[in-house]
Amino acid sequence: MGMRMDRLTTKELKDIIRNDPLVILPIGATEAHGIHLPLGTDTFQAEHVANEMSCRAENILVAPTLPYGIHSSMKGIAGTINITFDSMRSFVTDILRSLVGHGMGRILIISGHAASSHMTAVTEACRSVVSEHDVKIMFVSDFYVAQGCSEFRFDGDGHGGVLETSRMLAIDPSIVKKDRPKGEFIDAGGIILRDGSVCMPEGIAGDTSKASAELGERMNNYIVDTLIRMTEEMR
Amino acid sequence: MGMRMDRLTTKELKDIIRNDPLVILPIGATEAHGIHLPLGTDTFQAEHVANEMSCRAENILVAPTLPYGIHSSMKGIAGTINITFDSMRSFVTDILRSLVGHGMGRILIISGHAASSHMTAVTEACRSVVSEHDVKIMFVSDFYVAQGCSEFRFDGDGHGGVLETSRMLAIDPSIVKKDRPKGEFIDAGGIILRDGSVCMPEGIAGDTSKASAELGERMNNYIVDTLIRMTEEMR
Amino acid sequence: MGMRMDRLTTKELKDIIRNDPLVILPIGATEAHGIHLPLGTDTFQAEHVANEMSCRAENILVAPTLPYGIHSSMKGIAGTINITFDSMRSFVTDILRSLVGHGMGRILIISGHAASSHMTAVTEACRSVVSEHDVKIMFVSDFYVAQGCSEFRFDGDGHGGVLETSRMLAIDPSIVKKDRPKGEFIDAGGIILRDGSVCMPEGIAGDTSKASAELGERMNNYIVDTLIRMTEEMR
Amino acid sequence: MGMRMDRLTTKELKDIIRNDPLVILPIGATEAHGIHLPLGTDTFQAEHVANEMSCRAENILVAPTLPYGIHSSMKGIAGTINITFDSMRSFVTDILRSLVGHGMGRILIISGHAASSHMTAVTEACRSVVSEHDVKIMFVSDFYVAQGCSEFRFDGDGHGGVLETSRMLAIDPSIVKKDRPKGEFIDAGGIILRDGSVCMPEGIAGDTSKASAELGERMNNYIVDTLIRMTEEMR
Amino acid sequence: MGMRMDRLTTKELKDIIRNDPLVILPIGATEAHGIHLPLGTDTFQAEHVANEMSCRAENILVAPTLPYGIHSSMKGIAGTINITFDSMRSFVTDILRSLVGHGMGRILIISGHAASSHMTAVTEACRSVVSEHDVKIMFVSDFYVAQGCSEFRFDGDGHGGVLETSRMLAIDPSIVKKDRPKGEFIDAGGIILRDGSVCMPEGIAGDTSKASAELGERMNNYIVDTLIRMTEEMR
Amino acid sequence: MGMRMDRLTTKELKDIIRNDPLVILPIGATEAHGIHLPLGTDTFQAEHVANEMSCRAENILVAPTLPYGIHSSMKGIAGTINITFDSMRSFVTDILRSLVGHGMGRILIISGHAASSHMTAVTEACRSVVSEHDVKIMFVSDFYVAQGCSEFRFDGDGHGGVLETSRMLAIDPSIVKKDRPKGEFIDAGGIILRDGSVCMPEGIAGDTSKASAELGERMNNYIVDTLIRMTEEMR
Repeated sequence: MGMRMDRLTTKELKDIIRNDPLVILPIGATEAHGIHLPLGTDTFQAEHVANEMSCRAENILVAPTLPYGIHSSMKGIAGTINITFDSMRSFVTDILRSLVGHGMGRILIISGHAASSHMTAVTEACRSVVSEHDVKIMFVSDFYVAQGCSEFRFDGDGHGGVLETSRMLAIDPSIVKKDRPKGEFIDAGGIILRDGSVCMPEGIAGDTSKASAELGERMNNYIVDTLIRMTEEMR
Repeated sequence: MGMRMDRLTTKELKDIIRNDPLVILPIGATEAHGIHLPLGTDTFQAEHVANEMSCRAENILVAPTLPYGIHSSMKGIAGTINITFDSMRSFVTDILRSLVGHGMGRILIISGHAASSHMTAVTEACRSVVSEHDVKIMFVSDFYVAQGCSEFRFDGDGHGGVLETSRMLAIDPSIVKKDRPKGEFIDAGGIILRDGSVCMPEGIAGDTSKASAELGERMNNYIVDTLIRMTEEMR
Repeated sequence: MGMRMDRLTTKELKDIIRNDPLVILPIGATEAHGIHLPLGTDTFQAEHVANEMSCRAENILVAPTLPYGIHSSMKGIAGTINITFDSMRSFVTDILRSLVGHGMGRILIISGHAASSHMTAVTEACRSVVSEHDVKIMFVSDFYVAQGCSEFRFDGDGHGGVLETSRMLAIDPSIVKKDRPKGEFIDAGGIILRDGSVCMPEGIAGDTSKASAELGERMNNYIVDTLIRMTEEMR
Repeated sequence: MGMRMDRLTTKELKDIIRNDPLVILPIGATEAHGIHLPLGTDTFQAEHVANEMSCRAENILVAPTLPYGIHSSMKGIAGTINITFDSMRSFVTDILRSLVGHGMGRILIISGHAASSHMTAVTEACRSVVSEHDVKIMFVSDFYVAQGCSEFRFDGDGHGGVLETSRMLAIDPSIVKKDRPKGEFIDAGGIILRDGSVCMPEGIAGDTSKASAELGERMNNYIVDTLIRMTEEMR
Repeated sequence: MGMRMDRLTTKELKDIIRNDPLVILPIGATEAHGIHLPLGTDTFQAEHVANEMSCRAENILVAPTLPYGIHSSMKGIAGTINITFDSMRSFVTDILRSLVGHGMGRILIISGHAASSHMTAVTEACRSVVSEHDVKIMFVSDFYVAQGCSEFRFDGDGHGGVLETSRMLAIDPSIVKKDRPKGEFIDAGGIILRDGSVCMPEGIAGDTSKASAELGERMNNYIVDTLIRMTEEMR
Repeated sequence: MGMRMDRLTTKELKDIIRNDPLVILPIGATEAHGIHLPLGTDTFQAEHVANEMSCRAENILVAPTLPYGIHSSMKGIAGTINITFDSMRSFVTDILRSLVGHGMGRILIISGHAASSHMTAVTEACRSVVSEHDVKIMFVSDFYVAQGCSEFRFDGDGHGGVLETSRMLAIDPSIVKKDRPKGEFIDAGGIILRDGSVCMPEGIAGDTSKASAELGERMNNYIVDTLIRMTEEMR
């Protein structure tokens, strides 16, 4: 476990702020992830990356994880907790304003979930705060960071697929089921679906028989190292 | 650890929902708690109660904790992350609507934080959902539940005081500092303060030299038992 | 009748503002108050206190009364006019901003109604204005002020009870019926009620057979004197 | 004084509702009205009409007056309390929804103030409620009703002018000053003014030397009679 | 065609802005206009005036037309696209803020549509921007400007009537049908109508048999000349 | 010119609706597009596609174009008119609700602009309407449709690049300047930029020396044909 904000006193935090730390806000999700992965998959991944970054590099502080996000295709599937666009945007804006108000001027938001409305809502929150204050904010989804890895080449892999299954196997195999489902994302071609789940009949996209803890370990490391490097320049 | 929603697959959750479980949504806070308690004090307390309830009684499911709330007196003190009223109300409304939408009809919200705006925001969220759906929602702060315990009689004890210090000593002594500060809450007599922290110059209310892990243990048990009893009738 | 803002010309008001008056904004309510008290009970009490303060002390100006508020338990009972949280908060914010904008820098809001959502909405309005301007605002419910009186000791007395009945008998006996009902407030223990009136089956809390005009007179005087004293320090 | 809602108990109100009463909601304003008229001029006029209607005709109930409105030209002049568009619209919507929710199905809103934003805000509130419920709502400004009177022919008479001065002389001469100012409304020709008061340099429009209590009495009677006639058909 | 903003490059626009141009924002509507006029009648009229002004006078730039507005009486008739008050107000506010942000300091909004909610929404947008920035904004409906013409005296002429039919005959006779309907506006006397179209049973107000392209030409010229004159003083 | 809604009477529209037409809502933008392309580039492209579809296929109706959108990188460059997220979302929602309310049940929105916040805002509007009504809505950006064309392979081509320049040369060469600039999009790597224009120092992305009217003609045809085919299945 790295340096967790919720375990510090106000005095300890003040001392850390003096050193201009990188503050990571992990944003997870509670979302159906196929028959084999737990609802908190996005949360566990974002938290893992944040904690690892805090352990491996100096001066990185992890804020409490927001474990909910915005969903479309999985919205109707049991266990998906869906936040509306406005609630998400304003909740994250509030968190950022408080962090900045206390003098934290370098912030990285890592979202385990990567749906486009979700990403836009958080981006809009960041933009508000950046337009108001002289602060540096980086916002990424670890899902997209991972796809920059040369090793990862699985066409059509997405929600609950090889990447996520592998990463969860490396993070906590006890909550990954034995099944290795295969599923496809069917593009709706611009049609706005009432029930978005028809795009992923199996609830996942990818062939998870190719997943492994070793691959997950390498992907997690790649993400952690990449983000440490990217944020080092954020001064 | 009890039955955590984020560790279940959608299929496991569906099976549990069929048995009409009590679903607990813990709401914490990230707030300055004096020189001795960590910023996540309210989160740790609410989560502890939720987990213990889930361990000790049947058919109790714990949703992911929302670790942020609404603050007034501590708002300006380093580490307090302040959510605005509307963001809090709508975020919690969204969570509740999703839970109810998936068929979870008995919900207990436990808030570790107990400020009046915070309580009202969550109450308003609950009321919206209750007026829309046929669902049972109970909303309590464990801080107030604890005060029903005959053993607990410390006048003027409040934020970061004997109760909270004792409970944190029982939950995780590794994050409680050795200092045992004493502080007072000074009533503003209706004056709306620009800087609410003048009401608590030491950042806490109570004489924490009277705190002990044993007392904390008994208070935690009292809260868990009381809430199990109260929710048993929620059918 | 004290110094009522609505009876002054703009020029007269300007002259008064030069002396830095205390401006009172009475907030009432239109709410079912049992079989014996009129719907405007909260309005009449708040206005009475404001007018008396203006008569007895120098330099106190009374703004027009807002005769509506936020209700929960009585919401469904005939005659209760319920304002939603956001409407109340923003309407009161607007009034305060105008008062402050014209140079009125000492404001007392007296709410005859004391429900928690109502109190929070008005408090939030006050906080916005206090955070924006250098102004002193005090916000009280006369119902709570009264409970500080040593003479008043009726356990479980509340909505439409001994205190309110006595005060109305002193203010205007012609609109108090002869019945002296008895009722109880039944705590819902955190359950969010769809129909809040089940908490007060008789629509009141207290034993009004103990009410008298004399007691009401003393309570009204206590409130007026207490508030004059409390606001004298607001400079 | 006619039948005032705030002076009735819930039980009395229920009995009245059974007879399908006309419910009048008077909306006033707190607004600078020249050197001779009080800030509450619009409130006093609307309340006077409502009370008279209730006295002269059967089955007319008067709800508590909302004494605030939306202003533009007088907004910056001492004593004008300005409500924003959204607050006004939603506050009035809430009142109407409660009235309708309790079974009051014939409602007349009389606004003493007649500015176009103010009128639009209240109209929008009425439209929402009419689109949701099967209810009859009439919304008028007595200022415009008066202009239908054949006797009244004063070109350019407006805010604080002959009509308003005369009516106030008839309603309560004790709060009308001896001055009889003369002023003009200067049309801005579509220019959106930052300071709307330049349109009325004297703060009024009209030649108030022509005002009289007798004229005011006739105008008040005309309004009351006209509205009684107009609302009789509202079944 | 005058100087259209959408046909310029950013560089060309910058050069024009240096000369402090008048910028016209035409606001149209998509609204049923009887059996003889097209749904875009208000759009075509506003655009025609804007283009003519830009052709006849120097230094006038035309922004892209917003072809939608707020409707009440025609709302339910096929083809009327109705924007809600808040959407209209905020959309126009955004456009104005961008224009002003790029240094355009003299703006004329011409609305082809003239309903009161529509006019208020746009006025509120203008007021926000005028209160924030040092900018001159004029807002008119060409429909009202036209009524200042001495030649135009048709009592009761309104929506889709002589004025609009004549103007459309002059602007584009190919989209005016041969029918010349006659219709009346029936005043609802303050009643808030659920279906506003009952006020105009024929969907128009006026006797269009009196319409002619020649009259339309003169009215269009009158409007263009009047607005050029009015805006010349806007420096 | 195809079948334009604004040129039809309400009666003509009703007849068309009976045949269940495809209704196209073109959404453009007013945005800086480099030194060679006009501000209305996105509007002209979306309108061109809509008109061509209406000309080439049966039963396609074109609603009035909304010529404004949401911008980030070009927001500060002269001529970019920026709509905020909420205004855009609610304005489009209103348009859609009216279309659907009049019985138009097959809608295609073509956005000339393709920024992610812009796309999300319109998508959210579509989702609201689809969740409320039984209606088919397709939403595409012609910019993305074009990229499906096998012939188009210009790496890094984007805003104001080869594709847009070529298409504008085919649509209206009179408003394309002779310059053929070259520019690059520089990825900010998750950093939230205060001034988004640093991502495109030349204001465009691509090497426009490769643009030609012939290529533009083929791309426009490809888009029109592709969308006709895609929407044919929308029944």
